[in-house]
Amino acid sequence: MTIETVSEARSHDGVQGVYAHASAATGTKMTFSAFVPDHQPGTRLPLLWYLSGLTCTHANVTEKGEYRAACAEAGMIFVAPDSSPRGEGVADDEAYDLGQGAGFYVDSTRPPWAPHFRMWSYVTEELPALVGEHFPADLERQGITGHSMGGHGALTVALNHPERFRSVSAFAPIVAPGQVPWGQKALTAYLGDDRAGWGKHDSVVLIEDGARLSEILVDVGTADPFLKTELKPELLEAACAKAGIDLTLNRRAGYDHSYYFISTFMADHVRWHADRLA
Amino acid sequence: MTIETVSEARSHDGVQGVYAHASAATGTKMTFSAFVPDHQPGTRLPLLWYLSGLTCTHANVTEKGEYRAACAEAGMIFVAPDSSPRGEGVADDEAYDLGQGAGFYVDSTRPPWAPHFRMWSYVTEELPALVGEHFPADLERQGITGHSMGGHGALTVALNHPERFRSVSAFAPIVAPGQVPWGQKALTAYLGDDRAGWGKHDSVVLIEDGARLSEILVDVGTADPFLKTELKPELLEAACAKAGIDLTLNRRAGYDHSYYFISTFMADHVRWHADRLA
Repeated sequence: MTIETVSEARSHDGVQGVYAHASAATGTKMTFSAFVPDHQPGTRLPLLWYLSGLTCTHANVTEKGEYRAACAEAGMIFVAPDSSPRGEGVADDEAYDLGQGAGFYVDSTRPPWAPHFRMWSYVTEELPALVGEHFPADLERQGITGHSMGGHGALTVALNHPERFRSVSAFAPIVAPGQVPWGQKALTAYLGDDRAGWGKHDSVVLIEDGARLSEILVDVGTADPFLKTELKPELLEAACAKAGIDLTLNRRAGYDHSYYFISTFMADHVRWHADRLA
Repeated sequence: MTIETVSEARSHDGVQGVYAHASAATGTKMTFSAFVPDHQPGTRLPLLWYLSGLTCTHANVTEKGEYRAACAEAGMIFVAPDSSPRGEGVADDEAYDLGQGAGFYVDSTRPPWAPHFRMWSYVTEELPALVGEHFPADLERQGITGHSMGGHGALTVALNHPERFRSVSAFAPIVAPGQVPWGQKALTAYLGDDRAGWGKHDSVVLIEDGARLSEILVDVGTADPFLKTELKPELLEAACAKAGIDLTLNRRAGYDHSYYFISTFMADHVRWHADRLA
């Protein structure tokens, strides 16, 4: 697999790059960003994945996420994929919460989405292999985080692959897509009406069905306009309590859903992952 | 003078706001951002100005500058004006380095620019008065910094008002606009061919003519594509050496002209200002 370097810039004692490649999973050109701190030649560094929210590309967190200083200090690679396939010939919808920019980290089985909307395969199989090949990442030391729809992605990817991720966190995640409008709309469109197929992509259902992680870190803002309608962290809290999963749920007074919130607590999350990936 | 709140979001233990007002100086609606860290009611905080570079609005540094954590720790207000007047009815040019987004922090005397391009009056008089009225800023403790064209703005504003600023720094500044293409083009357009009128807006000329600051901090990247053609920090270095101004000039290996560079050294600059504004 080959990758194209879109841009590279020195930043925070490392290199912030943007890369593109022809994805077999999505059948499109996909773009992602990777920050690689300076390191001794031949060493392999822990790897933190960041999955983005609705409407976002790799660029949002890359520009606004304020993760580089903390990643450089921890000696950790940070990779941010796009949130969906894009381009002409790729299905789309006028709404911001369906289609391009809204892949929901599933492999769609339904028209018109199925041909390209295969973000589950992309982020769990194709991109990890690509990153392992082209970057000095230690795939034995992977953590994952994300925001909103990407927080949903991070939690569901980790709950389905507990052996792969030593650390899992999320910012303002959708924790129970089957119970909220964003998730119901997207999962119906991408996977169909039969909710039996949704369980693999619903963190609360996964935990209720026996999936386990040792611990999870979640930050939410109390002024997040989606807190009570789309995020419902109390559902994750209840599921984790019942399952014996050590959830740290920080409710941050006055913070909203934006990168002003994410960037405030990003360094905390990076350090939390670094401690567990050391 | 009244201001309109465009947006406010909690971030890094403070409030990041964007505000707009009808400017008497430019005759247009002007937008700026201000970060105010949490503080005891009634206290007044030191104030750091950030002047932006070509093409930028307040938004570039607000989104990509990574200044909030350091400002919150230092208890310092950070204000970022726009880099020019904008809007219909405001003169413009197709080039990125003239007209809207390229005000160069001067009061234009020439058509078609003179009616609105009065950024000198705006950033040295009108906006400071507005900020003093609407924000808990201690105007006895002001510092100023900026990037590229805004580094030029920061240095020239400070050299013309040494009594007002206790601390001055810049990222990749244009230090001698009269000797480089960006500056020659802009000053000719805004001020006319007579170079006698340019001296007030040329840091190297100002220093050669006797303007003094006790110290200046400048960071430049060695991979900045404009370093040798537009920035020429060696001219500032020579002028400061001759004048006895304590210039700290950091040449950062491999860094370019972008916010990936600025954000890397922003916290250093914020702390440098905070030490001098304590």
